[in-house]
Amino acid sequence: MLDNIRVVLINTFHPGNIGAAARAMKNMGLSQLYLVEPEIFPSKEADSRAAGAKDLLENAVVVNSLEEAIADCQLVIGTSARTQRTFDLPLLPAREGAEQVVGEAKSGPVALVFGRETMGLHNHELQQCNIHVYIPANPEYPVLNVSQAIQLLCYEIFMAADNKSYKSVQEEYPRQKEMSLFYEHLEKVLRMTNFIIPQHEGKVLDKLHRFFNRSRPERTELNMLRGILTSVEETVDKKND
Amino acid sequence: MLDNIRVVLINTFHPGNIGAAARAMKNMGLSQLYLVEPEIFPSKEADSRAAGAKDLLENAVVVNSLEEAIADCQLVIGTSARTQRTFDLPLLPAREGAEQVVGEAKSGPVALVFGRETMGLHNHELQQCNIHVYIPANPEYPVLNVSQAIQLLCYEIFMAADNKSYKSVQEEYPRQKEMSLFYEHLEKVLRMTNFIIPQHEGKVLDKLHRFFNRSRPERTELNMLRGILTSVEETVDKKND
Repeated sequence: MLDNIRVVLINTFHPGNIGAAARAMKNMGLSQLYLVEPEIFPSKEADSRAAGAKDLLENAVVVNSLEEAIADCQLVIGTSARTQRTFDLPLLPAREGAEQVVGEAKSGPVALVFGRETMGLHNHELQQCNIHVYIPANPEYPVLNVSQAIQLLCYEIFMAADNKSYKSVQEEYPRQKEMSLFYEHLEKVLRMTNFIIPQHEGKVLDKLHRFFNRSRPERTELNMLRGILTSVEETVDKKND
Repeated sequence: MLDNIRVVLINTFHPGNIGAAARAMKNMGLSQLYLVEPEIFPSKEADSRAAGAKDLLENAVVVNSLEEAIADCQLVIGTSARTQRTFDLPLLPAREGAEQVVGEAKSGPVALVFGRETMGLHNHELQQCNIHVYIPANPEYPVLNVSQAIQLLCYEIFMAADNKSYKSVQEEYPRQKEMSLFYEHLEKVLRMTNFIIPQHEGKVLDKLHRFFNRSRPERTELNMLRGILTSVEETVDKKND
């Protein structure tokens, strides 16, 4: 499905941005790069910035016009720094645009079109799009570097396509019984060191309960804490001898 | 609130990445840039890539260690390409990490730490963090350029700040400096009670670091823990008289 999503770069001036775009795409599982009249391509600078994504540069399709790049696409998304509708086209923030891209890429090719570093997409290019997408940004400085804009869009597409949440490793946690024994031990030591004084018990134990219940020591950590308590007991007992 | 969020770059090798980071930050309304021993700074290349964000470079704070950069922070987020827990610290995808950052930045400084281009963050740096954040990516090529990773995190923060549903944090957390003093105190007491023995130091201190960084005692809880340590010291000292 991600293979149905292409990135189209128009008249890119800095070859470094082409390389950075390739890397950003591959990081997010995209592979189809189209270049409309790039200023310089191929180039060492692009290769260097592409890092492990040089294969995308090697397979990039270089064409003479946007029309060629999007000819077989069923949906064309134009990216724009403008956050106001200008062409009576739907204008979506990146996240919603990405959801639409993913939904449609199941059935056919979809293009994401990015404009020049200095001036973005021309009006006649914006008009060839079905939807415009903008990246929510600081209104005082909203224009992202083109490779950064590509990174964000590709990320939102990856997130929309792969919504499963990563499971973290299961740790072994102590049973409640073990926690109870720990609390008893802790209380014993705190009385031994006079941190808890019979006539002024306060809420210390409640507070410690709350802290350790929230922080959830793993079993090995709990064993370490028990060891610390024992070391205090033994030290104090020895002095009492 | 966004002014409470700082980006910390460690040992950045390519000055262009520093400039790109500044632009990415400003695009998303962030302004506080900290540089730990950058290879080259200031530089023309950084200025050029920063474009309209040169003010962030001019105001960047250059320091000699991560400790200095995060001393006054209440929450430290380490970014990592690893998607498996390695340090028993919470590991969140960027979107959830950003929600937590925004919630906590209302009450105090928060740091986002990014590592070297080639090798990311070292283990001792990751251990100074409370939470690790990763960017969901193509498992076959998951490592983003550092400025792209910054762009994505800053974007998620901007989106989370814009979203009224984020939960604000009520608790007051200690600064990293206070945590350092606590660790020193803890170590002192553990040596006093012979829980740590000079010839067999083991990894106890690392493990305790990990536990307390993860569990994040609130300020009142930390004060209580300090009180416990003092009570042990005094008890042991008295026996020594």
